[in-house]
Amino acid sequence: MAAWQSAAGFGAINLAAVHQAEQLIAPYIVKTPVLQSFALNELVNGTLFFKCENLQRTGAFKFRGACYSLLKLTAEQRAGGVYTVSSGNHGAALACAGQMLNIPVHVAVPVTAPAFKKANIARYGAKITEISAGMPARQAFIDQQQQAAPNALFIPPYNHADIIVGQGTAALELIKQVPGIDNLITPVGGGGLLAGTCMVGHSQNMTVYAAEPERADDAWASLQSGKIEPSRGLVSICDGLLTQLGELTFPIIQSDVAAILKVSDLDVVQAMKLVWQELKIIIEPSSATVLAAVLAYPDFFANKTTGLILSGGNLDVTCLPWPVTPLEMTS
Amino acid sequence: MAAWQSAAGFGAINLAAVHQAEQLIAPYIVKTPVLQSFALNELVNGTLFFKCENLQRTGAFKFRGACYSLLKLTAEQRAGGVYTVSSGNHGAALACAGQMLNIPVHVAVPVTAPAFKKANIARYGAKITEISAGMPARQAFIDQQQQAAPNALFIPPYNHADIIVGQGTAALELIKQVPGIDNLITPVGGGGLLAGTCMVGHSQNMTVYAAEPERADDAWASLQSGKIEPSRGLVSICDGLLTQLGELTFPIIQSDVAAILKVSDLDVVQAMKLVWQELKIIIEPSSATVLAAVLAYPDFFANKTTGLILSGGNLDVTCLPWPVTPLEMTS
Repeated sequence: MAAWQSAAGFGAINLAAVHQAEQLIAPYIVKTPVLQSFALNELVNGTLFFKCENLQRTGAFKFRGACYSLLKLTAEQRAGGVYTVSSGNHGAALACAGQMLNIPVHVAVPVTAPAFKKANIARYGAKITEISAGMPARQAFIDQQQQAAPNALFIPPYNHADIIVGQGTAALELIKQVPGIDNLITPVGGGGLLAGTCMVGHSQNMTVYAAEPERADDAWASLQSGKIEPSRGLVSICDGLLTQLGELTFPIIQSDVAAILKVSDLDVVQAMKLVWQELKIIIEPSSATVLAAVLAYPDFFANKTTGLILSGGNLDVTCLPWPVTPLEMTS
Repeated sequence: MAAWQSAAGFGAINLAAVHQAEQLIAPYIVKTPVLQSFALNELVNGTLFFKCENLQRTGAFKFRGACYSLLKLTAEQRAGGVYTVSSGNHGAALACAGQMLNIPVHVAVPVTAPAFKKANIARYGAKITEISAGMPARQAFIDQQQQAAPNALFIPPYNHADIIVGQGTAALELIKQVPGIDNLITPVGGGGLLAGTCMVGHSQNMTVYAAEPERADDAWASLQSGKIEPSRGLVSICDGLLTQLGELTFPIIQSDVAAILKVSDLDVVQAMKLVWQELKIIIEPSSATVLAAVLAYPDFFANKTTGLILSGGNLDVTCLPWPVTPLEMTS
């Protein structure tokens, strides 16, 4: 386990902490809406409630954990600032939370990260350092920070107690908005969202599932082998789900997740289209895994009420072609 | 004024009726969320609240008026069924409301309507008749219905008391969700949504604006001349806004709208991209006129709190190209 993935959490990881986090972050987050679609319900012969974390501040649930982890810092810790390594939603979330709370944020971004994602971090005023892709460069950045900025704290993307607890608030909000849910399902990458959701679902005797890209099925493999398996090194369209589980997230997931459901990239694209078309919202591929899984494993979801956490909506829609030709007159 | 546009309303058009409509339709509609974006607020140096009627049932505010107009029918009227002429959101809204209330719905659809829009009407089980494009064919269909189905009621898309009142519930909901709004802005086509919004805004001393495509600026021209001006026959990407005002909507708009703000199709596309990217929701071009207008006329909106009604999200996103190539590994 490399240091950049190791735990730096400060609090307990339990349901009481999730309730406390919900209170603390309430003034800063969006209480995201829950959407439904008759057409999608018919398709699965069940009842689906979509928790729209793509509509969360910075476009992903990641803002919950980032915000909570910064709110828990002491004044002295805040003054020292925080840093992380991320090319995606965690970096933007930490940058935004830091800007709101006046805490300096430094994000190391791999040079291979898309310009769109870099811009999404930079817009919140974080300091950005470009590093090479891969684990050694990450570790080198962290080592260098420990020398150069010894008072700054490293906030990793998921293997951190407060991050896990903060992510659990999405499911807590959902079950208050919609009573009577049987199943919860989230995507799994590093497992922060999933572990947080487990604590909430477990307390209510709900069945918790996870959706994972079949080309990045290290969480599935970890449950099979009983130990954290590394990323397989394959790539998937689900760019937010390519990391492996952490030592804090794995045992929770091992204990509380009913099944990890693997989905293909083609299933993900099909599910993403369905969400765009039927729910009229933009979700990124990683988010679409949950609907893809519900469609691929219908027996788990038929005649049940399922809460699906749509994790984020950050993709570059400006690169899509846009209609500019006047249409025929209709009314 | 052709018969297909003439009033067939049954109730009063006033604020009390809007309150009554809100109660009556509450069990059937989605209480749509209100979204905000820091980035968009910065762009206009004001505070914007987006009322997401694209997330309404059938993907447009039209469901409010359609639902209310059907709920007000007597048992005998319901048994006779209803019909309309529409290639767009009103047809789908009436079909869906009819399906929910077990009222037969018959929609005449111009042959020129896109297959996507026809399918959006058909999915709710309405009877569909294809007619030629243009006014004479519409009138012929209505005349034929009066002979063939004398007990069926014609429910026009906007020039109908209950439709106008029903559409006003979107603004009523918005001002309850967000206190302290200075301005309201909606798109204007036939004027049902705008007239309904006027009744709500006027009662609160808010300033009500409308956004209109410059290539379909008959509402603007009508306020200039003091009489209902016909559609100019030009086309715009805003396919929901190409109709002219009605005899019921015009006087309300004439009395209560501060200004009709004209926007180009290119401004609309730019605003649509901004909404997709920043709010993570899908809106159709007609809906984007309101943000386009706020951006084009900044003096009206700077340092103000403005409620923008995003009217709908029905466009065929499946025809967009979709990413299927695995992306580079990021975290």
